[in-house]
Amino acid sequence: MRPEVLNELRDIVGSENVSTSAADLYTYGFDSSIHHHSPEVVIRPGSTEEVSMVVKVAARDHIAITTRGAGTGLCGGAVPLHGGIVLDTTRMNKIREIRVQDLYCVVEAGVVNDKLNEALAPFKFFFPTSPGSGEACTIGGMVAANASGMRAIKYGATRDYVMGLVVVLADGSIVHTGTRTLKNSSGYQLERLFVGSEGTLGIITEVTMRIAPKPKKVAMVMAAFPTLEDAGKCVSKLIATPLLPSACELMDKTCIQAVNKTIQAGLPDCEALCMIEVDGEPEVVERDAQKVQGVARETNAFSVELTHDAKVMAKWTNARKSVMASLSRFGEKFVSVSLADDMAVPISKIPDAVVAFQQIAARNNVIIGTYGHAADGNLHTKMLVDPISEVSWRNGEKAVGEIYDIVIKLGGTVTGEHGVGISKAPFMQKERPTMLTTMAAIKKAMDPQDILNPGKMQEWQGGIIKHLRYPCKDLD
Amino acid sequence: MRPEVLNELRDIVGSENVSTSAADLYTYGFDSSIHHHSPEVVIRPGSTEEVSMVVKVAARDHIAITTRGAGTGLCGGAVPLHGGIVLDTTRMNKIREIRVQDLYCVVEAGVVNDKLNEALAPFKFFFPTSPGSGEACTIGGMVAANASGMRAIKYGATRDYVMGLVVVLADGSIVHTGTRTLKNSSGYQLERLFVGSEGTLGIITEVTMRIAPKPKKVAMVMAAFPTLEDAGKCVSKLIATPLLPSACELMDKTCIQAVNKTIQAGLPDCEALCMIEVDGEPEVVERDAQKVQGVARETNAFSVELTHDAKVMAKWTNARKSVMASLSRFGEKFVSVSLADDMAVPISKIPDAVVAFQQIAARNNVIIGTYGHAADGNLHTKMLVDPISEVSWRNGEKAVGEIYDIVIKLGGTVTGEHGVGISKAPFMQKERPTMLTTMAAIKKAMDPQDILNPGKMQEWQGGIIKHLRYPCKDLD
Repeated sequence: MRPEVLNELRDIVGSENVSTSAADLYTYGFDSSIHHHSPEVVIRPGSTEEVSMVVKVAARDHIAITTRGAGTGLCGGAVPLHGGIVLDTTRMNKIREIRVQDLYCVVEAGVVNDKLNEALAPFKFFFPTSPGSGEACTIGGMVAANASGMRAIKYGATRDYVMGLVVVLADGSIVHTGTRTLKNSSGYQLERLFVGSEGTLGIITEVTMRIAPKPKKVAMVMAAFPTLEDAGKCVSKLIATPLLPSACELMDKTCIQAVNKTIQAGLPDCEALCMIEVDGEPEVVERDAQKVQGVARETNAFSVELTHDAKVMAKWTNARKSVMASLSRFGEKFVSVSLADDMAVPISKIPDAVVAFQQIAARNNVIIGTYGHAADGNLHTKMLVDPISEVSWRNGEKAVGEIYDIVIKLGGTVTGEHGVGISKAPFMQKERPTMLTTMAAIKKAMDPQDILNPGKMQEWQGGIIKHLRYPCKDLD
Repeated sequence: MRPEVLNELRDIVGSENVSTSAADLYTYGFDSSIHHHSPEVVIRPGSTEEVSMVVKVAARDHIAITTRGAGTGLCGGAVPLHGGIVLDTTRMNKIREIRVQDLYCVVEAGVVNDKLNEALAPFKFFFPTSPGSGEACTIGGMVAANASGMRAIKYGATRDYVMGLVVVLADGSIVHTGTRTLKNSSGYQLERLFVGSEGTLGIITEVTMRIAPKPKKVAMVMAAFPTLEDAGKCVSKLIATPLLPSACELMDKTCIQAVNKTIQAGLPDCEALCMIEVDGEPEVVERDAQKVQGVARETNAFSVELTHDAKVMAKWTNARKSVMASLSRFGEKFVSVSLADDMAVPISKIPDAVVAFQQIAARNNVIIGTYGHAADGNLHTKMLVDPISEVSWRNGEKAVGEIYDIVIKLGGTVTGEHGVGISKAPFMQKERPTMLTTMAAIKKAMDPQDILNPGKMQEWQGGIIKHLRYPCKDLD
């Protein structure tokens, strides 16, 4: 990047918010995925107007811009594959309005999910979407990835909460989409198009978001099963009851052992367990919790525990949220990596999917931990890989392909909530054979120079493990 | 249209499904708005493949195609402004799948809303979006307009239920968007972009839609108020409680008198009333109904009636649904027209909006009936106009402009659920000053020849009453 351009950028955001230090460029080349590529400069603008001016400079000089929230993404969405600028939104962290009487709030893109919920708590409201990375991830990042988490079965994904956006387009112009009304039919629902577009169509700087009244009561049931398939059957039987829990987390034996070993979670030692949360009015919670226990026993749970105690629930939830980190410390020489990380299938296909994942792990000689938000059909797998063994990586990569094949065959998707980024891009053609041309046409219309997060989603044709973060010389 | 082209179209859909009769061309030039323009041919294809072949012919010969469901739209969305083909989807009326265990169904675009709910009823599920035209309107039309209705406050609009679509694009290619999973992050959420695009980006032929368990119990409160403002305050106080009713319908004196006169509805004679529905588990319904009555009394209701009787609720709901038709028969020489028909404002601005509408009516010497889904901020007005008086039309048109001005000033939108079509197009520039360029870019990318419903939404620059259905010689 030319020194004059760097000076221009410093003039826009202040020199303290522009970095070209080797340490920053290296660090900002990561997100939470397996991929890495360093940018040429890191910029931390403080307002929509500054973002607009930065984009105008980039557009003039054909410089790539990769927008980044907290970097918690698991698929490489925030990795600047083409170098250029990483635009860090975390300085834009103001909650502008909370209007409970109108059921919405307005936040800057860099506001952290849990900070928003802290601000909403005194009003007895919340933003229900509950990602595992909630204490770090930004609202802008959640919108860009259409993130969700534990509570989507009852409360929906981020896309269902976005009422309006302020977005800086590829030419630097500022667009206001959506409304502050609960519904609108006035023109294309562009706010919903930007949801899940992973920074490839525009840079989200402000979000108007629907909020929901907090439930009065919450209870949780933990059920331990003799097989993973039984746990899967419990989930699909619950939904067919019909009973929509507010969350339903599944963990297999590998995940249970990992959290028991690393954080002494004290979970029942079993093949699989489900933590099922119900919320709402007190009597309803009581009745639903009874029903959940009944369904768990009918599907062979050998241990069923109910709690209304907030501390116990927090402990269980923490055990579930620690799965990913715990898996990394599970085996001596292994690291836990996000290769196939957030597939979703129709709910009734959960038992088929979890059994197939077990078979794929055995067949490919890899260790796979399966867990996730089972009630909405969303399963996570993490693979334990020896980072310096090519064989280990290749086995993992082969298992990923087989997992995606079965997921697509079951009517599912390769990504339920994390996004495409780099990791899923090679599989988009398989899942979306008819849609990519339209995506490309929209991308070209909105970003003709391809400067916004280039190389992502559909365009990327490399292998899944091409841009590894680990030093693994044998690969490319 | 050349005879050879008509023959090609007959070959595709069968000659019994192609009409050029004067009666059909005249009839299909209407929807339920004030606008009219005849097509050159009406085609009723029976499948996605037939639609695709029809579009390929149209694309080759640059023929406009306006897609039409049941023609219940109130803004001219289905009026073929540029002539050409009207493509009637009502033969595509099969419910393909109902999968309650996976919380979705798959329907062809021409399936009627109430028919779908009849099919879901035995499973104790429903599609909650409840438009006034539910007994006639098609699911495809609802998706195209992002329709909603009485229950959006609790259950959301159509956009919140669309999981996937089959769409025929402007070149005749067939695209499958979305998934059969409750959430996905795999590529642009094109299914949500097509929602509300009013047939300008593609022709929706199949919809995969989330469904919801039916509530176990429903109750309704009717509250009569001394002023329209009090009724508005009741609504916003309810939401701030917080209490989310499943429906909350407001009617002003004009509407009450109209239904009492024409269908002997027997509603309380008052300045304004609210019908507030609560649903859910029995104890919760009981408690919420008590709360609703309390809030109504606190906001000056002088008569508050609660019912659990399904017949009484049906009678009240029928009175509300009859407002539009009743207004047309209210005054001897007047007809009720949709000029400003479905504005939405932030919920807490409802009292300001209804008071402003009354003042606008008085100032412009027009009769305006105000009613609507007040809890989600969505208000309907109908104007009573003497169809053969230019003065009457011009007064109405002036009032529309003033209504839209105040709605936008209050942070609202000119259309909450009916769409833009012809009626709202002249006001899009005012409401969406920064968004239209992006809409145009997407339209051009996806329909470069502008053959899909041309002249609608943003492009239309005529006056609101240019294409009148009524013989009104004085108007251009």
